[in-house]
Formats: sequence, C-alpha cells, structure tokens
Amino acid sequence: MFNTRTRIREMLGAERTGYEATVMGWVRSFRNNQFIALNDGSTNNNIQVVIALGMLDEITLKRITTGACIKAIGEVIPSMGKGQKLELKATSVEILGDCDAENFPLQLKNRPSLEYLREIAHLRFRTNTFGAVFRIRHALAFAIHKFFNDKGFVYLHTPVITASDAEGAGEMFKVTALPLDGSAPKNEDGSINFREDFFGRPTNLTVSGQLEGELAAMALSDIYTFGPTFRAENSNTTRHLAEFWMIEPEMAFYDLEDNMNLAEEFIRYLIRYALDNNTEDLAFLAQRLDEEEKQKPLTERSEMGLMEKLDFVVNNNFERLTYTDAITILMESNHNKKKKFQYPIEAWGVDLQSEHERYLVEKHFKKPVILTNYPAAIKAFYMRQNDDGKTVAAMDILAPGIGEIVGGSQREERLDKLLGRMEEMHIPREDLWWYLDTRRFGACPHAGFGLGFERLVQFVTGMGNIRDVIPFPRYPKSADF
Amino acid sequence: MFNTRTRIREMLGAERTGYEATVMGWVRSFRNNQFIALNDGSTNNNIQVVIALGMLDEITLKRITTGACIKAIGEVIPSMGKGQKLELKATSVEILGDCDAENFPLQLKNRPSLEYLREIAHLRFRTNTFGAVFRIRHALAFAIHKFFNDKGFVYLHTPVITASDAEGAGEMFKVTALPLDGSAPKNEDGSINFREDFFGRPTNLTVSGQLEGELAAMALSDIYTFGPTFRAENSNTTRHLAEFWMIEPEMAFYDLEDNMNLAEEFIRYLIRYALDNNTEDLAFLAQRLDEEEKQKPLTERSEMGLMEKLDFVVNNNFERLTYTDAITILMESNHNKKKKFQYPIEAWGVDLQSEHERYLVEKHFKKPVILTNYPAAIKAFYMRQNDDGKTVAAMDILAPGIGEIVGGSQREERLDKLLGRMEEMHIPREDLWWYLDTRRFGACPHAGFGLGFERLVQFVTGMGNIRDVIPFPRYPKSADF
Repeated sequence: MFNTRTRIREMLGAERTGYEATVMGWVRSFRNNQFIALNDGSTNNNIQVVIALGMLDEITLKRITTGACIKAIGEVIPSMGKGQKLELKATSVEILGDCDAENFPLQLKNRPSLEYLREIAHLRFRTNTFGAVFRIRHALAFAIHKFFNDKGFVYLHTPVITASDAEGAGEMFKVTALPLDGSAPKNEDGSINFREDFFGRPTNLTVSGQLEGELAAMALSDIYTFGPTFRAENSNTTRHLAEFWMIEPEMAFYDLEDNMNLAEEFIRYLIRYALDNNTEDLAFLAQRLDEEEKQKPLTERSEMGLMEKLDFVVNNNFERLTYTDAITILMESNHNKKKKFQYPIEAWGVDLQSEHERYLVEKHFKKPVILTNYPAAIKAFYMRQNDDGKTVAAMDILAPGIGEIVGGSQREERLDKLLGRMEEMHIPREDLWWYLDTRRFGACPHAGFGLGFERLVQFVTGMGNIRDVIPFPRYPKSADF
Repeated sequence: MFNTRTRIREMLGAERTGYEATVMGWVRSFRNNQFIALNDGSTNNNIQVVIALGMLDEITLKRITTGACIKAIGEVIPSMGKGQKLELKATSVEILGDCDAENFPLQLKNRPSLEYLREIAHLRFRTNTFGAVFRIRHALAFAIHKFFNDKGFVYLHTPVITASDAEGAGEMFKVTALPLDGSAPKNEDGSINFREDFFGRPTNLTVSGQLEGELAAMALSDIYTFGPTFRAENSNTTRHLAEFWMIEPEMAFYDLEDNMNLAEEFIRYLIRYALDNNTEDLAFLAQRLDEEEKQKPLTERSEMGLMEKLDFVVNNNFERLTYTDAITILMESNHNKKKKFQYPIEAWGVDLQSEHERYLVEKHFKKPVILTNYPAAIKAFYMRQNDDGKTVAAMDILAPGIGEIVGGSQREERLDKLLGRMEEMHIPREDLWWYLDTRRFGACPHAGFGLGFERLVQFVTGMGNIRDVIPFPRYPKSADF
C-alpha cells in the first residue's frame, strides 16, 4: 500500500523529469511556507518539495516543522534553485507524523556537538554526519562479505557465549542465568555453584572467534568470521569500545606472507569500494573533517585530507618491516634521542606503544606499515615460533591516525611446539583439548588475522571517536538504548 | 608462498585437463597405495590423486591415512575411473600434517551419528553432511546481505549488551564484570550494587534488535539487522538454541501488507539463491534426508523430498489468512472434533501451539502460511492496534516442518495508543523514553519482521535438529568449544 514511494537518492540520481512521483521523508527545513527540504535517509541530499501558495491550509502549514514526517505527491520538474537539478512540484502533501518542535533537539539553529549527539544516539541518525557514517558502515560491511564470498571463503558464526577463557586477549564479561540478588545456589565455600547455572559452568562473552575459526579452516580451507566481540576493560578512550565487531579470516595453506598479501588486498578493496559507492557521503565527511581540522592548532593538523588519505592507501603498497628493524629505526630516531617519546625505546623486546606506532606510520614512513616477527614474549601462545627461537610469525597493520587496525599471525601448527608454549604461559591443555585436536588430525600451515571493524569505519569516515561509528556504543557506565 | 593451490571445486568445475596444478587438502580415503580421495572443503566432491607405483617410499605411503593433510602436485588428466571426469596424476606428494589414525574419530568404517558428531563439533566440518550444511549457511547469509543491499537497506549493528529488558520476549542472560565469587560490592539489603558494575546498572544479552532498529528506520527509512540474539530458556528441543542469529528488517512507510510482501519475496529469494548456488550440496542433503526418512514408519514420512519442498516454496504464493479465520478452520477440523490435538481449540483468543500451526501448514493448506491480525492479548506491546479494538497488525509466517520462521508486525506509531498499551502491560515508560521519542518527533507508519536464521537454514538443508545448523550450538548444559 505504502510501497509506492521513490527514494530520493534514486530520484536525484536519475535526473529524469516530467513524471509524477511520491516521496516520503523527514522535513529538514521549510522556507517561506513554500520550500520543503525533505530527506529520507537514502542520501544526504534533500529533495526540494515546492508547495504552491494557497495549496495548504494554515493549520497544515504550521505542522510542517523540522523533523516532521510527510508524504508528498507531485511532478518531478527541473529546478530553478541553486544546488539542485530537480524538485517536486507538489499536488498533495500529507503529514504522516508531527514533530514536537518545542522539544525536538535537532533544530537547524544550533549545530549540536558530537558529544551531545551521543546522548541522543536514537535521533542522531537524522543528521547529515551520522547518515553518512552509517551508510558508509553499511557499504563496508557489505564489501567485506562480497570480498570473501567472491574468493570462496565460508562465513562462520563463532559463539558469543563461551566457556573458554584461554585466549588471554583481555578482561571478559561474565554471563549467567542465575539470579544476582544473592539468592544464587552456592558451594560450601560461599562461591556461586555454576553447576546449577544454565550451561553448568562459568561462561563469558567472547573476545575473539579465532580459535573456533581455526577449527573450521582445518576442513573448509578458508573461512571468516564477522561478529561482535567484547572487552570488559575500563578504557575511556577514543579507540576502545566494550562491544565491537571484528572480522577474522582464517586460511589453511597460508604462511605469513600470504596472510599479509590477503590483508593488504582486503583493506585496499574495502576503501576502493567505499570510494566507488559512497562518493557523496565521503565528500561530505571530508569537508566536515576539514572544518574540524581548521579548529586545531597548525602543528596538530593532519597533512592529508580524508580523500587524499584514502586515495593514498589505495594507491601505495604498505611498508613491510620486521619488529627488529622497527626498533632500530625508533631507537635511532631524533624523536627518541630527544626524549620526545613518553616511553623511550631502550632495548629490543619491549612492546610498542601507540606513540611509537604513530611515529613509524605518520612521521617516518608516511604510509600504512606492516610490522612482522614480534618477540614471542609479547604475543599470544598460538603464534608460530620462528627458527630464531625468540620471535613469532606475527603481523600487525598500523594505519595513519588509527594505529593498529589489523593483528594477525601464522598459527603454530606443530603440536609439540604449541604444547611447549602453552606450558610456558600456564595455559591448561585440558581447556583447549578441541583446539589441540586439530594439530593431531591433519594439521597444516595456516594463518589468519583480525580486523577491528569500527577502526576501519573510523579510518574511512575520518571520525575521531570510535563511539561515533557504531550505532549505540557500549563503554564504561554507558549502556543506553 | 603457499597461495598457489587450485581449489578442488574450481578444478572439477572447469573440467579442463592437460595442465599442471597443485592441490592441498585432507585425505578422505586411500586405496591400493595408489588412489587418494582428497577434499579441501570447497566442495563435497573429492579429487582423485593418483600415485604411480614406486613413486613414494613405504614410510610416506603409511602416513597417507584418512584425515592426513597433504599437498600434491601433478598433471590434471581425464579420469578412467567411475564418478569423476578428471584426476591428478601426481609428480610429488608432501605430507603437511599427519593424522593420528588410531584416535581419529572420523574413520570411514562406521558412519558416525549426528549426536556423536555434535560432541566433536570441532571435527564435524570434515564430514560431507556438515561441509554441505555450512557452505549452504554461508550462501544464505550472503544472499541475505545481497537482497537488502540491492534494495538500498542499511545494515545496522544493534547492541548485544543491553540495559533494556522491556521487550518481554523471554528470559534473558545477565552480563556483569563484577566478580561472581561472592566478593562483589553489595547494597545494604545484600543485593549486588550494580552502580559499581561496568555499565553502572544491570545489563543483559539482547533478545531482539527491533526497538533499536526502529530508531534507525525513522531516519534511514529501511534498515536490517543480522546479529546474535539470546534466550535463557531451558528448552531442550530440536527448534531452540540459547544463542541464535536473527535478521530483523525494519521499514518506514510500510504497512502490514507491504511487510508480508517483503517477507515473502525475501524467503523466496533466499531459497532460489541456494538452489542456484548450492546445487551439489543440496542434492547431497536431499539424498541424506531421503535415507533418513526411509528409517521412519510410513505414516511419519514427509510427503515431499527436500528439493520438491524448496521448489514448491519458490513457485507458490504463501497462503494468507487472519488468525480469526485460522481459528475457525481449526475448530471445525475433524482433527479438533476427534480430539487429536493435545490442546483442543475451544475459543477465539488462544495462542496457537506448534501442533495447530503444523496442521494448518502441512495438512490443511499444504504450503507456507501467513497468519495475520492476532489477538492483542497474546502479542507484544509495540504492535499496531487494529480498529476492531481487540486485534493487532501482526503476521507470522509458518513453514512446513519448521513452524514459525518469521514473526512481524506493523508497529504502533501513535504515541497515545502505544502508551495506553504499555500501561496495560505494566511496561514503565521511563525505560523506553528513547523509543517513545521517535513517536514524538516525526513518526510514520512502519513495519518489520524477524527471521530466525537457524530455522531458515534448517528449512533449506532439511536438518532435523537446530543444533546441527550452527557451528557450535549453545543449549542447556552445553557451551563446549
């Protein structure tokens, strides 16, 4: 019945005139009781709906306020106005939903801050910025599925609730169906008796689907996950969320180099896809970022605009170097010698801080960097041990302005080496019997990586705070909506 | 380095011969020290790798056991053998990973039961049945994204952790970062002090992304979710999981009829996609189901095979009727009169049980059925109230053998009606201030539905138990892997 509307994106894109059409959407502005700028979320561009003087009664005109939802039927004609090629000459206008103009927080007069919009995340979809961000987020998600589907990968849904906590990737949220009011069944020592819980044991929210992904890769060859992951870390930063989405491909018959090649191709594909499919939204966000940058002191401004940065990543190979070479570069840098790092680099073996990663990417190489072969001591148990006896076949991809966007490795497929490392790290083998089984029954060289989806969306949209690229962000003290 | 292999699916599909190729995969069988059936998970079909007598030493030959992982290089030649058009005449064979044949649970001799395979879910990907199921699951997931992307819908990631428990869709799992050993901070009355918890209040795992989806639809017009949802219900059935994936589209400017049209088009599209892209896997599963059916008594067998059933759904419109008409049919049925229902239908207003739904779908109409306009008393608060004062604009799609596969409705966009219903159902309006806001600021007629992804996969694959269509199922007392 309603399904007769034309989307504004299609209407404006076709540039055809001389036909009758129906549009529905939300009023962005209403000038002179004549010109409605109408938006339906399919694009940031509005269609101008023109109302002939006297066509609507006073009461209806008063109801056409910013935020109101209307249906307009009319003829699509060439526009005389600036900034638009066509407009809709209305023959009928119907108010579908009034907007309480007194209380509507998104009036044109005051441009609301991103912080304020976070408090009204249920309404921020109606702004140009968030319309653009969430359309691009969609496009990137679709491109991820398309990339892997075209390559014959199998999309795997790994479990969110898990009894495994061996990965050591960070603090985990606990999940229970028992009452938390003190009435849960207890053991003799006063602790909660999880045998009475839903799963018969303690369970958590997953921090990664990798270990389960490896199980499937040892049969289907190439798989990827794309699902929510969790960290109960008290990080109030612009780069961390308690709930975020990760993509984790896992490939049989891949070594570290294959892994790097795939990750680089993947990131470049995604950015190219956004450039091709979200041209208008990217242009809008580039301008937004440009204005934001102008508020900053000269020394803190980015050297590149958003579009330049994206073009640059698409057109340049990532710099690949070992952790060891990176340490040498950092140690010998003037930055280090002049003690400009908060954590000076003094010796091989230390974990790199965000400031070091940014120095390498933004100052030294001025392009995305892939660091490889990290010290075993600062990496996870499942990474393949190199012959030098001290490094593992890890790789991290560092992006300008974001830092680590991908972390991956070739996996340790040799059972004895894997068991040795687990013992060193005090990981009980009983907890991972199923993971170890894959090394007993036809293991093979394999590799994989994880891409933080929100960090990718940040990179592509230029949004500075990760809380602004996921619809309803979860962070300390915040679980609204 | 490794990335030079040809996938077996491509090799067999191309039917080209006379070139050198590398294949890697897992040994399914090894006959006469000569013929390896090799599988790489890209298809259920194996490539036959032929080893010339004397090419490999005795020790290597002994290592080629079922489950071992090997790399073979050789010439692709026409095959003389039955059931295959081509084979690989090996010039080199390398063992990538041995398989402990003594302990490998997937020997060809005994066909393992589905129940047993559930216990070794980390290895069941290597069987023909689960290879087929998870490739089809992938294809359906991709088709879902493609369907909506092609229509201009925006994919929305709604939160998994939520402080909202107003939906009333069922028992929820609790999420906390506080210790559960009794040491969590307490209020004076002994209950846990959630102000000290990560989010500063009690939180749960979501049962649905719908309410959040509506928020975005009131700006972007058409959105869909595809994410995990949870029920802490102690249901040990073949149709329930504690963790499952749902697709929830939500459309502005849709009424109930538009909603039904979209849902029907959607389901038909997905099945058509699987028929076009998973021909071999579906044929395999159809045969598997056929054999399973033959074990059943004649009266319990399905009237249609898997392929017939899928073709039937693609080619026939769903039967649409109101709840009221369905009740009349059920009340007047011989089945009801002869008291064959466990819960006899005695009056309008009762909720339909699975047995009633199956009677309508499988006995009466013999096709998928869309039931509409249910009594308000048995449906959720957000469904649009019909003018009769007793029904709501709900729709459920019932599929043969599965029961309810889709549940949806037009949403109540009128603030006063919505508030009235919430009061009747004792839902505090403070908890849903953000949801109510959308009715204050330019609401419009809108609708949506939820599709249980695993039920869809069950329907398409013919698998009888929902635990066999998700990689690592979560159900009471089970959180393995």
